Amino acid sequence: MAEELPAEFRLIARHFRPLAGPGALDLVDDAAVLAPPAGRELVIAADAMVAGVHFLPDDPPELIGRKLLRVNLSDLAAMGATPLGYLMTVATQATTPDAWFAAFAAGLAADQAEYGIHLLGGDTVATPGPVTLSLTILGHVAPGQAVRRAEAQAGDALWVTGTIGDGALGLRAARGEIADPDAWLAGRYRLPRPRIGLAISGIAAAAIDVSDGLVQDVGHLCRASGVGAEIAADRVPLSPAARAAGPAWLETCLTGGDDYELAIAVPPEREAALHAAAARAGVAVTRIGAFIAGPPRVAVLDADGTVLPLAREGWSHFRESPAG
Amino acid sequence: MAEELPAEFRLIARHFRPLAGPGALDLVDDAAVLAPPAGRELVIAADAMVAGVHFLPDDPPELIGRKLLRVNLSDLAAMGATPLGYLMTVATQATTPDAWFAAFAAGLAADQAEYGIHLLGGDTVATPGPVTLSLTILGHVAPGQAVRRAEAQAGDALWVTGTIGDGALGLRAARGEIADPDAWLAGRYRLPRPRIGLAISGIAAAAIDVSDGLVQDVGHLCRASGVGAEIAADRVPLSPAARAAGPAWLETCLTGGDDYELAIAVPPEREAALHAAAARAGVAVTRIGAFIAGPPRVAVLDADGTVLPLAREGWSHFRESPAG
Repeated sequence: MAEELPAEFRLIARHFRPLAGPGALDLVDDAAVLAPPAGRELVIAADAMVAGVHFLPDDPPELIGRKLLRVNLSDLAAMGATPLGYLMTVATQATTPDAWFAAFAAGLAADQAEYGIHLLGGDTVATPGPVTLSLTILGHVAPGQAVRRAEAQAGDALWVTGTIGDGALGLRAARGEIADPDAWLAGRYRLPRPRIGLAISGIAAAAIDVSDGLVQDVGHLCRASGVGAEIAADRVPLSPAARAAGPAWLETCLTGGDDYELAIAVPPEREAALHAAAARAGVAVTRIGAFIAGPPRVAVLDADGTVLPLAREGWSHFRESPAG
Repeated sequence: MAEELPAEFRLIARHFRPLAGPGALDLVDDAAVLAPPAGRELVIAADAMVAGVHFLPDDPPELIGRKLLRVNLSDLAAMGATPLGYLMTVATQATTPDAWFAAFAAGLAADQAEYGIHLLGGDTVATPGPVTLSLTILGHVAPGQAVRRAEAQAGDALWVTGTIGDGALGLRAARGEIADPDAWLAGRYRLPRPRIGLAISGIAAAAIDVSDGLVQDVGHLCRASGVGAEIAADRVPLSPAARAAGPAWLETCLTGGDDYELAIAVPPEREAALHAAAARAGVAVTRIGAFIAGPPRVAVLDADGTVLPLAREGWSHFRESPAG
């Protein structure tokens, strides 16, 4: 009967409406209306994050919002797409303080400005469980130009952006398990830097973002493309902080995940184009191996060419069930 | 190193890949690629559901998947949009049995066939908490023809589809709190019937789907449009099962939510068009009141024209926080 909004809708009006962009209809409607850029195809992905699984429950809410957005932007980067906007569902305890939402939204606002995108819609619900976030990101590409996973060929070189392993070491650092004097590793875990802006469309034969672990994610490229891959362990770019952690952590770097760098298959004749695109974007790229004919298997080789045995190749949320 | 897929990816391949449609790239890629129908605008919405909050933890998984999809389809119905596809994130316990996923996916497959849509992408993660689902639905409309909430005018009649209150009573029935001899009410709670197919674009001045409670949702229309509304309690269509529950349950019907019917503002001169559209779609529509000039307030009137006092107008997930 009242003119007052219920608490849930005041919360949305207070914290999320300021994030809304064109098409979101001020988050007043049941859905957003969106006219994609003329002559472009849409690229759409969705990723979820759970407190205690994908981020630490006491991580600053500003960074949780930004990580959620960036994890999804990284999927667009892997497809060579330009970000357009996002929808988000947020499940929190009914008693979550207003200040948590304010900080969470402030982080999103900062990244909206950085990546030139806006909130399009979503839902805010209560859960008796951990904070659970889901985000659907929309981007666009020229028709037929999305970079796929399935088109790597034997003879393509394997490149990665940035440095590998900081995310996995950063999780250990955030938990106090390894030294991180200047908190750089923990920062890499809490705030990934998706490689939006590296224009890989037309250069990459195939690409994937490194979220579940380098070896596993390159394995996905291999399975999708029907090729094998060899990675030279000593070529994998490590940050100074990861090098300082010591060689005992190399396997964690190779398999740990949370890097949100790109692994890219590049035909040799496009290497110069890759370097030019990387220079324009200000992103380091390093050739760490090659795709080879054969079964879809990833071999990590040491400096002698010996295959390094790995206890596991990456991250899975699920144990094998009896029917597996 | 292995050619084997990790358990998480086998789970996706086994249960979700068969649901994938054109553009989903077999769920192999980081994102889906989608060319919206030529000359149409996209309509996009996202809703989340949490076990124990939006559905009962022991509800059949077939029905949980279908409810998730239908709750989102209902948002498209309120905008007058045609469904196109969806992305979904699924957070379950790591030990969730394979059979749960099989049944969940079977329910989605049934509704994909019913509504002519396909899965486009998503994410599957583990949670230590309750099953938490998020779905982003995509649809399309002719440019500028999406039905909004903000354009109801004083003098428009207020119509609803179907019957109101069955969802709220169905929740009580599913919990064993009220009699439901043929399980019809519980069925309405577990499996809503979104009014996709009722072509309200060009007929409705404004519309909303009734998810949080009739009074509250009509209140949203009023606030967005800057008008008031009067609802005649004795005109609100109740199912035989809801009538059998007795007048003590009327307030629950008016405020309880989970109906997924539409509340529609229709100018008097379009009433005949509404009836024609309803007949084509096989959907009952009932005029229950009118929008009036004045503050954005919803008054529920009894047969004498007396305002019925309501303890609450609908559902909110959040208690008011101190900053509210």
